Amino acid sequence: MCQLLGMNCNTPTDITFSFEGFRRRAGLTDHHTDGFGIAFFEGKGVRIFRDNRPGASSPMADLVNQYRIKSYNVIAHIRKATKGDVNLENTHPFIREIWGENWVFAHNGTVEVSVCPNNHYQPIGTTDSEAAFCCMVAKLKERFPQKPSEQALFDAVMEITNEIAAHGVFNFILSNGHWMIARCSTNLHYVCRKAPFGKALRDDDVLIDFSQYTTESDKVTIITTQPLTKNENWVKMKNGGFVFFKDGDTLFEVEGTLPECQPHV
Amino acid sequence: MCQLLGMNCNTPTDITFSFEGFRRRAGLTDHHTDGFGIAFFEGKGVRIFRDNRPGASSPMADLVNQYRIKSYNVIAHIRKATKGDVNLENTHPFIREIWGENWVFAHNGTVEVSVCPNNHYQPIGTTDSEAAFCCMVAKLKERFPQKPSEQALFDAVMEITNEIAAHGVFNFILSNGHWMIARCSTNLHYVCRKAPFGKALRDDDVLIDFSQYTTESDKVTIITTQPLTKNENWVKMKNGGFVFFKDGDTLFEVEGTLPECQPHV
Repeated sequence: MCQLLGMNCNTPTDITFSFEGFRRRAGLTDHHTDGFGIAFFEGKGVRIFRDNRPGASSPMADLVNQYRIKSYNVIAHIRKATKGDVNLENTHPFIREIWGENWVFAHNGTVEVSVCPNNHYQPIGTTDSEAAFCCMVAKLKERFPQKPSEQALFDAVMEITNEIAAHGVFNFILSNGHWMIARCSTNLHYVCRKAPFGKALRDDDVLIDFSQYTTESDKVTIITTQPLTKNENWVKMKNGGFVFFKDGDTLFEVEGTLPECQPHV
Repeated sequence: MCQLLGMNCNTPTDITFSFEGFRRRAGLTDHHTDGFGIAFFEGKGVRIFRDNRPGASSPMADLVNQYRIKSYNVIAHIRKATKGDVNLENTHPFIREIWGENWVFAHNGTVEVSVCPNNHYQPIGTTDSEAAFCCMVAKLKERFPQKPSEQALFDAVMEITNEIAAHGVFNFILSNGHWMIARCSTNLHYVCRKAPFGKALRDDDVLIDFSQYTTESDKVTIITTQPLTKNENWVKMKNGGFVFFKDGDTLFEVEGTLPECQPHV
């Protein structure tokens, strides 16, 4: 099993505080040591850093923290391998081009998914996660030769991935750089950070005062497997829950997925 | 216009010496300052580092040098924008999945290529280079639903890209991590480094003694727009030339493309 981290914002935001706590679980506070990856969208482009070494000690992860890249959408993953060897091609997040967009995907759980030999999208590695992602984008491309509306897309992703989720555990985060979709099969939490901004205490006792780094209009949603801070109002998504985030806000959701956003202040 | 750098070897090799000289042209010794990128294959996986800042001063390029990643196949590019804005999505090398493999592509020149709306592969950015790459992989996938032999692939890449090259200048380097194809439209040089290894003097007067870093059986081919060293036997490929490199050797070539490999010793 693995852990997921996603960030969706209305202003380019530095994820270092959250990522630094997250990657401690890849060898220090937890055992997700079979590689890590993080993708930062920048316009239509994306920077992806992956390593098959543990996120807590990977020099690639050190670099990511030094860089302080600001982005509207970020997806990160720390791996505890269940299916597929520990190597670069099996390291999340996975990426494919669809409708001239970069789509980035990370998964927590294990699913039974058969690789269709005639799918246009083929997995490069041997994980169930990449096979499921390829299956999803192939079905979307078949259904929509041209890019559909966001609502139609959300509905289709939900329908297609519910079929996949019937054969396993399928918590995932997906983004095209404009929006982020989170699906909770068993375990996914989120917190929204907005004004009035307060202080957050990470679970390794590092404190940050968000009010020093933000403006009144900023909205930042963090989605993750396990809450990263001790004193924020993390919401556990319901099983089978689906949310479409855009600009740090919830745009669509399956009814009852999310209670109203109440950040810690 | 841009400059290209490729490396194909029979042993994992550190490209730092060549890349360090190459990236000086991105702001120091030449004016290719509109972004840089470098892709290192690792098994079926690939690490890509791209920046829209000049390669000579990019902290991302500094990192690449610090890292000393060893790889069998590397493709790098420094950009002087002719078509498409200076941004991350327009930065080479480009990457697509085909037959469950990562294919990485970098281009020098300008081509007229129309984007086919029904192509499965769509460009994400606005360069002619990415459009040409998408066109090529779409045609290959159409012709070969399953991966063909290397000889059939080489012939098909040659045929398809010759059509594209009829409408512009199309020097490119392409790799799937196992082999590397180089096409010369107007300007591409290569050198093969093998035993007995000697010393090479970079054009910024940095000297390296390859014999300290190699074994008798090592073979390393470097392909680049302009020779990177002063005292090696760089070969200028003929116009219209095509070579398929594997394990540092020439596997297929258009007759007369390459004189026999005679490294400096």
